[in-house]
Amino acid sequence: MIDGKILVLDQTQLPNQEKWLSINTVEEMVEAISNLSIRGAPLLGLAGLYGLYCAAKQAFDFQDFQVLSKKIRNSRPTAVNLSKMVDIELKKQKNITNLDQLKDLFLQHASSYEKELTKESFLISQNGSSLLETRDCILTHCNTGSLATIGLGTALGVIKYGHMAGKNISVFFTETRPLMQGARLTSYELMKAKIASTMICDDSVGFWMQKKMIDKVIVGADRIALNGDTANKIGTYSIAVQAYENNVPFYIAAPTSTIDSLSRTGDDITIEFRDPKELASFPIDSRIKSINPAFDVTPAKYISGFITEKGILNPPFS
Amino acid sequence: MIDGKILVLDQTQLPNQEKWLSINTVEEMVEAISNLSIRGAPLLGLAGLYGLYCAAKQAFDFQDFQVLSKKIRNSRPTAVNLSKMVDIELKKQKNITNLDQLKDLFLQHASSYEKELTKESFLISQNGSSLLETRDCILTHCNTGSLATIGLGTALGVIKYGHMAGKNISVFFTETRPLMQGARLTSYELMKAKIASTMICDDSVGFWMQKKMIDKVIVGADRIALNGDTANKIGTYSIAVQAYENNVPFYIAAPTSTIDSLSRTGDDITIEFRDPKELASFPIDSRIKSINPAFDVTPAKYISGFITEKGILNPPFS
Repeated sequence: MIDGKILVLDQTQLPNQEKWLSINTVEEMVEAISNLSIRGAPLLGLAGLYGLYCAAKQAFDFQDFQVLSKKIRNSRPTAVNLSKMVDIELKKQKNITNLDQLKDLFLQHASSYEKELTKESFLISQNGSSLLETRDCILTHCNTGSLATIGLGTALGVIKYGHMAGKNISVFFTETRPLMQGARLTSYELMKAKIASTMICDDSVGFWMQKKMIDKVIVGADRIALNGDTANKIGTYSIAVQAYENNVPFYIAAPTSTIDSLSRTGDDITIEFRDPKELASFPIDSRIKSINPAFDVTPAKYISGFITEKGILNPPFS
Repeated sequence: MIDGKILVLDQTQLPNQEKWLSINTVEEMVEAISNLSIRGAPLLGLAGLYGLYCAAKQAFDFQDFQVLSKKIRNSRPTAVNLSKMVDIELKKQKNITNLDQLKDLFLQHASSYEKELTKESFLISQNGSSLLETRDCILTHCNTGSLATIGLGTALGVIKYGHMAGKNISVFFTETRPLMQGARLTSYELMKAKIASTMICDDSVGFWMQKKMIDKVIVGADRIALNGDTANKIGTYSIAVQAYENNVPFYIAAPTSTIDSLSRTGDDITIEFRDPKELASFPIDSRIKSINPAFDVTPAKYISGFITEKGILNPPFS
């Protein structure tokens, strides 16, 4: 938030371009969330608050505000932080119907939540770093750094903290098909942080585990069920199963706000299906049918521990 | 082979273009093999024979022929069919040093081997089809059809045969990062064969197995060790581990010529590393280091059976 404008770095244009979007309306916020200009579970919680601010600013009456806030809430289904933040905030202000008053409150809360997120990601990073040993090679998937949160990040935050603390670690990161968040975003952050890192094809994760080149896996989460089943970027389950078979510890790094008290197990988590056009990045015959789930659920039994701002936790959560 | 010219369909240009290469020299054959214009383990055996023919045609003496045939033999390391076919053929003709005579022999043998491959892939397809049940959904990886062999194919041959025999099956096929042989080649063959099929991201294989959408996995092989450990396209091991965890039968379809008597276990198999530029198909910062193994080894314990021209086999092989 600068000069009354919500400015966000357009993540779809990275690493080739650092383009900032100015978001002023609910429609712009929904578009930025849906097309992944804004992405990453913790950051989506903050986007939800700023979205409510836009809704209160532009609504012509309270009923209109309710319609607009539902649009924000439902702009992406899997990361719980978005819908949860909207729900909590609306419940908190349930007795206020004055739009000006709501607008000011949402802005205040967004600003204080931004500070909270920074602290939270610092604590996650610090707590996770205690698990790292000198010369560990860490595998990560997708992007969970400063671009996905505010502050250091979650899984990538742990890696950055460990590096800063002098643990002499190195990183393997996946390209992360189909949208290449690893190749585009994680590569960019690791380079900026000057951490020794190597990009690998998602398909080669098992190859490197077989070769004993990967000491630990740390990834983020979009939603954690009470029993520990965890939704995260598609391909996470695959990595977890391979880590399990190769005796490589597999950690989730996420704020406790990603735990969803409404999801008893992974079966309760809605998986977003995105446009099949995101597959095969070259012109293919339009008659080829394809299907594109954006997340998968890793059963709790494959997860060695949950790195949170409150320490390393294990399910069941309450 | 048409009118004295070796004509091959350039697989790097599919599906956008059906471009035929005319190969006349050892250098052209090595280039076509290295850049994957010609690919697929069984087809590489045939390319080896035609390569020997080119070598005998262009060599200025027998010593030169030996140098050239070594170039053909070593143009790709992992698929055993190439080096093995060259070794067998050279051993067979070890008492002949007349280049004209060798040239004629290699051409004769290439032509009869082509017929043999057609028959072999028919038998593999027929044998494998006995494993398929009505309404099975089969997952396959990479390309193992007519483009990779002569005739029906190996894994894809089984699928095509089952479809022709009226088994009402459907197919999920992976994009197959990094070179997209699934998206480019398998898609093309499945469409031509009018088989109900859906392309998925390699990262979503486990997701569909969790949803019980995949009944069987059938893939090809580049080299099979005597204990059954099998080298195939990178990502195969990942699929096998996930199939194992989800109780999905996982089959290798390959001619017995892919069994390598010199490889006792998977540890004896050389894995080709290809240019890291094959990763991340958009311009990325040149400082990002990446590494690109083209194959992985699936331990025998994950493999439910080997579909060969001699029936469904199980290791140890002799």
